[in-house]
Amino acid sequence: MSETEWIKRYIAPLVTSEGADGLRDDVAILSTDGVVIVSMDTLIEGVHFLENDPMETVGRKLVRVNVSDILAKGAAPYEALLSIAWPRGWVEAEFAALIRGIARDFEAFGISLIGGDTVGTEGPLSLTMTLTGQCFGDGPVRRASGSVGDWLWVSGEIGWGHMGLEAAVGGGDAAAVKRYRVPVIGNNDLAKIIAVKASASMDISDGLLIDVLRLSQASGCGAEIDLDRVPLAQPSDGLDVVLEQCTGGDDYAVLVAAPQGAAMPGFTRIGVLTDKTGLSLRHKGKNVNVPVTLGFEH
Amino acid sequence: MSETEWIKRYIAPLVTSEGADGLRDDVAILSTDGVVIVSMDTLIEGVHFLENDPMETVGRKLVRVNVSDILAKGAAPYEALLSIAWPRGWVEAEFAALIRGIARDFEAFGISLIGGDTVGTEGPLSLTMTLTGQCFGDGPVRRASGSVGDWLWVSGEIGWGHMGLEAAVGGGDAAAVKRYRVPVIGNNDLAKIIAVKASASMDISDGLLIDVLRLSQASGCGAEIDLDRVPLAQPSDGLDVVLEQCTGGDDYAVLVAAPQGAAMPGFTRIGVLTDKTGLSLRHKGKNVNVPVTLGFEH
Repeated sequence: MSETEWIKRYIAPLVTSEGADGLRDDVAILSTDGVVIVSMDTLIEGVHFLENDPMETVGRKLVRVNVSDILAKGAAPYEALLSIAWPRGWVEAEFAALIRGIARDFEAFGISLIGGDTVGTEGPLSLTMTLTGQCFGDGPVRRASGSVGDWLWVSGEIGWGHMGLEAAVGGGDAAAVKRYRVPVIGNNDLAKIIAVKASASMDISDGLLIDVLRLSQASGCGAEIDLDRVPLAQPSDGLDVVLEQCTGGDDYAVLVAAPQGAAMPGFTRIGVLTDKTGLSLRHKGKNVNVPVTLGFEH
Repeated sequence: MSETEWIKRYIAPLVTSEGADGLRDDVAILSTDGVVIVSMDTLIEGVHFLENDPMETVGRKLVRVNVSDILAKGAAPYEALLSIAWPRGWVEAEFAALIRGIARDFEAFGISLIGGDTVGTEGPLSLTMTLTGQCFGDGPVRRASGSVGDWLWVSGEIGWGHMGLEAAVGGGDAAAVKRYRVPVIGNNDLAKIIAVKASASMDISDGLLIDVLRLSQASGCGAEIDLDRVPLAQPSDGLDVVLEQCTGGDDYAVLVAAPQGAAMPGFTRIGVLTDKTGLSLRHKGKNVNVPVTLGFEH
């Protein structure tokens, strides 16, 4: 079966936007109601997912890493473009499974495919998605708009990405493996709360601590984090185990700053933006040293 | 130098849209004045460009294959997202040259970078660009909207991509190599003419004949092409040499249909949409057989 046939059979059903014109053309008309934002993420086999990860979960992860960026800005996922660079010898069943995973999460998050490209490669499977989002507020909630005194909150749990990768590589806990392969992320309800209440927001992809530092620095603040408050995949009294999870990355939870006292349903309060520089950490009521590596640095 | 430093130094200067917020965030606000269209193209080393192609021309080609799609729809290039998957051991000078090429053509075509992703790969260099376009008319000129009797026209010359690839691989004519590496494409003036005059339009990327067939089939017509009229990179009396260029692909010229008699400055008339099925070809006043391979089939 040719690439054209694969596209017809598997990819065309992902199209629900009129502007895509059924992918019969080289371009799509973008839906542009309200303020539209856009993100782009690439996943490479062997770097962002493992060779033996099932293709269906790879497809779901591709959607989720992009959706996570959009939700964190207080916006609803909207329309997507998809580039697939497939390795030589790739078979129809793998392609079908990848698209099945993408389709499942497109439906879950209300996304329509509107375009993309499919090419062959001598290298590993490479997937790039461009995703638009429709803002619930007047614009995206930026990471640079926090203020001294704002409380810091996280959605979901921290550490699953890291614990799950270890489990996937080492043959560990299946539930953790699953959460590495298909990150649990929020939905439009979460995005609405962010749009209404958050002063600053970003998704946590490289590690909680490095992303706290980024948000606070962008906002011209410092940050203090109470490690005992961080909702962990593997709760622990040991500082090492806590820090491992807080610097491991691949969480796709959301970190927000919000004015003191604001109720943030679905979020856990973990700290505060301060007028100091950099990061300070508390653990069991004491200040502890900030680790040298705060997360994944690109 | 870290990825973050490379991005600051080389990529940040490509940002001219306010909505990109200087790439300081995970998302950009899309500019949405008028009707906005979008395309996405991926180029892979060893597939879409050669290993020894200079990085600056690779960057320019990446921009041009995307711009070609947008211009062909009667729209002006607008905002871009860029994903770079770079191979291990890639050095700063190569990265800088790639971005220099992209920057040069972003400036030439008035494009602002608004986002993207940079990742490492064990495989070949892989580049994906998402490009938006602002329509000059009420919407994009589709490939499916031609009518029986419309004349068919092409912009530029056909065959450079094919001749240039042969020259690049075989050590041939430098001018042809250059046109393979940096396709000569139109500009906004061409797009305006398309928006105002064309009934159907598409860019020619897989070969003139296959793309003529696609446009005519999408429009519910057949097509007759007078091969003597086709403006060729290497004009020839020999049918084989003519057909080689008309099926070689990588032209990035524009194929349009327009009502009979419409003046199409910058275009060459090559044929007509008919009420028959499929393609018919004339050469030196006689009907000739349609070749088995009309171009590159995905």
